[in-house]
Amino acid sequence: MEENPIRAEEMLTPAELAARLSDQHVADVAEALNRQPPEVAAATLALLPRERAVEVLDDPELDNGAELIEALPLDYAISLVTAMSADRQADTLRDLEPEVRERFLDRLDPETRTSLKQLLAYPENTAGSLMTTEYVSALPTWTAAETLDHIRSVERTRETIYAIYIVDPRTRKLMRAISLRRLIVSDPNATVLSIAVKRKPVSVTPLTDREEVARLISKYDLLAVPVLDRAGHILGIVTVDDIIDAVVAEGTEDVQKFGGTEALDEPYMEIGFGTMVRKRAGWLCVLFVSEMLTTTAMQHFDDELQKAIVLALFIPLIMSSGGNSGSQATSLLIRALALGEVRISDWWRVAARELPMGITLGAILGVIALVRVSVWQYVGFYDYGAQWPLVALTVAISLVGIVTFGSVAGSLLPFALKRVGFDPASASAPFIATLVDVSGLVIYFSIASVILGGRLL
Amino acid sequence: MEENPIRAEEMLTPAELAARLSDQHVADVAEALNRQPPEVAAATLALLPRERAVEVLDDPELDNGAELIEALPLDYAISLVTAMSADRQADTLRDLEPEVRERFLDRLDPETRTSLKQLLAYPENTAGSLMTTEYVSALPTWTAAETLDHIRSVERTRETIYAIYIVDPRTRKLMRAISLRRLIVSDPNATVLSIAVKRKPVSVTPLTDREEVARLISKYDLLAVPVLDRAGHILGIVTVDDIIDAVVAEGTEDVQKFGGTEALDEPYMEIGFGTMVRKRAGWLCVLFVSEMLTTTAMQHFDDELQKAIVLALFIPLIMSSGGNSGSQATSLLIRALALGEVRISDWWRVAARELPMGITLGAILGVIALVRVSVWQYVGFYDYGAQWPLVALTVAISLVGIVTFGSVAGSLLPFALKRVGFDPASASAPFIATLVDVSGLVIYFSIASVILGGRLL
Repeated sequence: MEENPIRAEEMLTPAELAARLSDQHVADVAEALNRQPPEVAAATLALLPRERAVEVLDDPELDNGAELIEALPLDYAISLVTAMSADRQADTLRDLEPEVRERFLDRLDPETRTSLKQLLAYPENTAGSLMTTEYVSALPTWTAAETLDHIRSVERTRETIYAIYIVDPRTRKLMRAISLRRLIVSDPNATVLSIAVKRKPVSVTPLTDREEVARLISKYDLLAVPVLDRAGHILGIVTVDDIIDAVVAEGTEDVQKFGGTEALDEPYMEIGFGTMVRKRAGWLCVLFVSEMLTTTAMQHFDDELQKAIVLALFIPLIMSSGGNSGSQATSLLIRALALGEVRISDWWRVAARELPMGITLGAILGVIALVRVSVWQYVGFYDYGAQWPLVALTVAISLVGIVTFGSVAGSLLPFALKRVGFDPASASAPFIATLVDVSGLVIYFSIASVILGGRLL
Repeated sequence: MEENPIRAEEMLTPAELAARLSDQHVADVAEALNRQPPEVAAATLALLPRERAVEVLDDPELDNGAELIEALPLDYAISLVTAMSADRQADTLRDLEPEVRERFLDRLDPETRTSLKQLLAYPENTAGSLMTTEYVSALPTWTAAETLDHIRSVERTRETIYAIYIVDPRTRKLMRAISLRRLIVSDPNATVLSIAVKRKPVSVTPLTDREEVARLISKYDLLAVPVLDRAGHILGIVTVDDIIDAVVAEGTEDVQKFGGTEALDEPYMEIGFGTMVRKRAGWLCVLFVSEMLTTTAMQHFDDELQKAIVLALFIPLIMSSGGNSGSQATSLLIRALALGEVRISDWWRVAARELPMGITLGAILGVIALVRVSVWQYVGFYDYGAQWPLVALTVAISLVGIVTFGSVAGSLLPFALKRVGFDPASASAPFIATLVDVSGLVIYFSIASVILGGRLL
């Protein structure tokens, strides 16, 4: 195995570590601190130049900013937090214990405190919780040259200067947005209003979900999107770099939820054993208890099973095929809904597609099953009994029924969840498999009693 | 149901459509054309002003650029393609039929043709296939003011001007990168080299996977990342807006693959029935044939089943629990690998976490099963026979074994796939469920024969 540079780092004192990190990219410093125990990381942070320490705390790569802040002397911690960007201040304070957070807020200057409290009030994963209040605004009458001068003077305190927002001097409402690119190439003496694109800027509300913010930023190739209140005043902006992190996090959450775990919100290796058990056991138990219905269903059919034990042989095969087709349909629709390719009102169009799709897929599997049973019977690998052609037919027809049920139910489940206000991604593969398992057994035994009734049963 | 503006659009002639789209954002025009049949969309495109048509073709929102190009008169199509940005030229030509593509390439000017052929040669989803060759470069001796003048003169033909690359005048190798932001706020008379950050720019190779490009852009908050050849010359740049689209596509692919479908590469509603059947039937058949091993396994145990039909009742419950825990573990590790939180060499650390995790989760489910069987027996819902305590014990111990196997196997499968060069996301929930089902049956019946041997069996 290759030599691992992390190992060596673990031996260093905070002073050595601080020296080693002095000329590295801030994201790499953040990553190095992530790998250290909080006390060592905090001690290292304290040894970095103050401005550098603020940069590190400002970097979204840093996982445990709140812990570091708590471990530092209060006065120094407050001076660092005060210098941080507004959105990262909020992110960091959000992770603090409530009583520590209050102590911090009390020590900040009133203006910062008010704006921070407002940011902290927005629910997680909304535009409000992602936005920063540090954007560049301009008045419509300013010339391009004046606006550039203004940008130069405020640059240090702004998260991005690539999007400039033109605000009505009287109502303070957003009028237009203009990119730095356009500003640079325009006549320096023209007013910003005259050179801005004559179109209402794309905007979101503080409660817009991060997925929708990402969709807009991606669709319109924006570097930032303004967050407006009802009246049209800018509350802040969400920048593209925050949104990339959000999109990646959203993808992770979708996969984790679809896999049947609660979203972890932390790297796999860093999460504690107890937390991990909680995040996984919850769903596992719910699914287990629901899946117990299969036992109940089978108890109901135990007479049939006694008479035709051959039916039991195909139960896992049939059930898993229903689960698999359901899992396929669910995953396709989860993403189609997430990307806005289909809307809730399209549910019947989806059902109309999945019905023939399920029948086709089920028929393909049914034919394979027919071939398999016939071959095994002819070659003599196994004797399915005198009624084997009827047994094969039962299996094949059940497959059509169950795969069709799986496809239709799997495709509609995300719609149903979205309709009642849940994340469609909660329609996990295990969830849909469980749903289909129980119904699958009932379908299988019902078809068996029709086809084999009076013969085997 | 709400009034749908798409409906009305479907009635419009190309001329009416072109008029209606004239003042809309280019991304909205692209979206509107996506909703039209190719002939209508092409006719509409032909009616737009030429510059506008090029903008639309340049927009990544447009799904079927190749189809539109094919439907237009060849000369006009070539004049449009020539004016497109290099990366979108390549994207569009990639989707053309090979012979049409050759005809197109032959008609382009030699310079464009050479650079396009090079872009087309890179495999999909690599930095090479995402990059554009239209970036801004500067010489180290230029002043900030001179560089800004240069930017103004070339701006129209550059995909982004927010990152400027300083190139050695002799070797043409990349020396430094500087942001427009830094350039704007610096002393106009200082040389660009003196104001650029004194650090080797973050870069990728043309074969770097888009996931890794996204990770770097996100980690270092870049607006673009340069793509270098072995010697260190810039081949092109990948911009943040292309990478957001790529990250979203990657998330979709991960969920779709994990759901057990081939990646669709097209919106759910637009894909043809036949294509959809192909994309889904393949995996479904592979899984079905593998799952037939469960039938084989059960045939092997049919004696035991005959003697103790009560064992059959718990088969779906036990199998699904293994599949669920496997699906959880797989989904967690797929994302952990995708995000670089764990590396291939960490597999044993993961196994060492999942082993106790599986035992714990299995024990929780085992206790629930014990309680359930006992309650049903006592209350008289169902009679599991004289040996019911041993049956309950068999089920509980099997659950520990199967959930542990599911967790460990599920967590290691993505590593194994990555090791042999597959996408870890191919470790779909159905795949792992099938793997666990077969082993689960064997575990269950083996434990049963040990505990119940000589009594029931």
